[in-house]
Amino acid sequence: MKYQIRLSGSGGQGLILGSILLSEAASKEGKNVLQSQAYGPASRGGSSRADVIIADEEIYYPSAESLELLLCLTQEAADKYITLLKSDGILIFDSSNVKINPIKAETIAIPFTQIAIDKLKTSLVTNIIAIAFIATLTELISLKELKKAIKNNIKEKFIDLDIKAAELGVKLAKDYKNGKVIKT
Amino acid sequence: MKYQIRLSGSGGQGLILGSILLSEAASKEGKNVLQSQAYGPASRGGSSRADVIIADEEIYYPSAESLELLLCLTQEAADKYITLLKSDGILIFDSSNVKINPIKAETIAIPFTQIAIDKLKTSLVTNIIAIAFIATLTELISLKELKKAIKNNIKEKFIDLDIKAAELGVKLAKDYKNGKVIKT
Repeated sequence: MKYQIRLSGSGGQGLILGSILLSEAASKEGKNVLQSQAYGPASRGGSSRADVIIADEEIYYPSAESLELLLCLTQEAADKYITLLKSDGILIFDSSNVKINPIKAETIAIPFTQIAIDKLKTSLVTNIIAIAFIATLTELISLKELKKAIKNNIKEKFIDLDIKAAELGVKLAKDYKNGKVIKT
Repeated sequence: MKYQIRLSGSGGQGLILGSILLSEAASKEGKNVLQSQAYGPASRGGSSRADVIIADEEIYYPSAESLELLLCLTQEAADKYITLLKSDGILIFDSSNVKINPIKAETIAIPFTQIAIDKLKTSLVTNIIAIAFIATLTELISLKELKKAIKNNIKEKFIDLDIKAAELGVKLAKDYKNGKVIKT
């Protein structure tokens, strides 16, 4: 098993933090994880991305860019990275901000930003809702380990809010799996 | 310019955090950075490592494992990674814990853990002293940007301590460059 996930969006959307939470939680589930991200002028102002590779065996290098799962929170990120998704992969995008032309891969539209604002009164937790959605959808990471990773990595004053966001993301993924239409 | 740094030691020594601080600060210095780390059972209990690649151009992949700079905080990490260092690279090791046989690369012995305990009463800031040492030694990152990265990423109650640790690491690097023998 080797599962390559890319979280993409713009700088400031907390995707690096999101990837660290996923990585730490996945490792506690007994998986090997290689996590990487680009920083710097080349990414500034434009699209930002953080990668998480989860595998049963030890991972030495990222393999060729061929993603099992791509999360896109902005149109620019979607336009930049969508061609890296495997044809049997999963595309998850924030339908509050992004429009996608039909592709062969499974395509999941969730209005993450709008849900964050409607349910938790802030778009700042969009990243946490999205990674909790991914954790549950892929069945790679439990809510229990995700909560622990949040407690380990988030500033104390935001922990309660982020745990609520994680619970919301898990619920959305369960609803999606059960065939419910997800609206804001 | 492409500069590959590996921070190695054991889990719990804060090397991932250290690599994130270096990466964020380097990007603010106008560099492109690719930062990566392994998590999971394969690294648990044994050696842990986090990589920072700093370059003028955008970095797409880690290149073959050939390091310009290797930091080793434990013997196990030194034994595991020392062969990856370029012959004209720099090895920095914690002489509180590690013994190194002579190698061709520039070899810098600093008793980071002992200095942390003697000067700041806790070994928990060994990682911060070491990354500040690297930042100044390589002249890639200023203390100013390192402090900003600490403020952005560290829990509030530890910020003052970590800034002192960074200042100490910078001083040690300046002393080293000026030819002073560094003892605890």
